Amino acid sequence: MKIADYKEIKAEPVDFEETKGVKVRWLISDKDKAPNFAMRMFEVAPEGYSPLHTHKWEHEVFILEGEGVVTDGKKECKIKKGTVVYVPPEEKHQFKNTGSDTLRFLCLIPIKNSNK
Amino acid sequence: MKIADYKEIKAEPVDFEETKGVKVRWLISDKDKAPNFAMRMFEVAPEGYSPLHTHKWEHEVFILEGEGVVTDGKKECKIKKGTVVYVPPEEKHQFKNTGSDTLRFLCLIPIKNSNK
Repeated sequence: MKIADYKEIKAEPVDFEETKGVKVRWLISDKDKAPNFAMRMFEVAPEGYSPLHTHKWEHEVFILEGEGVVTDGKKECKIKKGTVVYVPPEEKHQFKNTGSDTLRFLCLIPIKNSNK
Repeated sequence: MKIADYKEIKAEPVDFEETKGVKVRWLISDKDKAPNFAMRMFEVAPEGYSPLHTHKWEHEVFILEGEGVVTDGKKECKIKKGTVVYVPPEEKHQFKNTGSDTLRFLCLIPIKNSNK
């Protein structure tokens, strides 16, 4: 069993194109021999955002702290602590911090897509 | 895309044997056509606990609120907001609320095991 405070797990800068102020902590991954899915924590600084993109795998997201929006490039929906977001495969999405504090959320993906 | 506050998703009593004061919300599941894994939120009342058991699939857990312990039946480890727990397949585990408020956590499992 692995038991850790999330703060013990390093926050690494995310340097995808069209990304601003985003860090990721790989809380549970293939390094833990997790067989099916990986749990990551994203931290988005104020005015930061993830890329507006699409891919073959899904996201399962839970917002822990902060305020922001999720958008498909057309419509924006507000997200805050306690919001659940399911992004199906091949659906365009972007997360933006619209608040004055860090936007922190869990985002899980299939392990087979966790090196992409 | 599914976007919901977790409170909009019904908390159902868990009536496994040797379980006390536990409710579950299926935040993302096969009903959302999630192909690989299901996101559930568990709410354990003070003095409540999940069964001490084992099974073929893993758990990926993130503690949201409250205080408790996770145990393999021998050793107990404290858990609180921000604790990450990875329970590998076939490893014995139990979650107990040792605090005076609800112990609330996310627990994800493979979708193929989500009807068990």
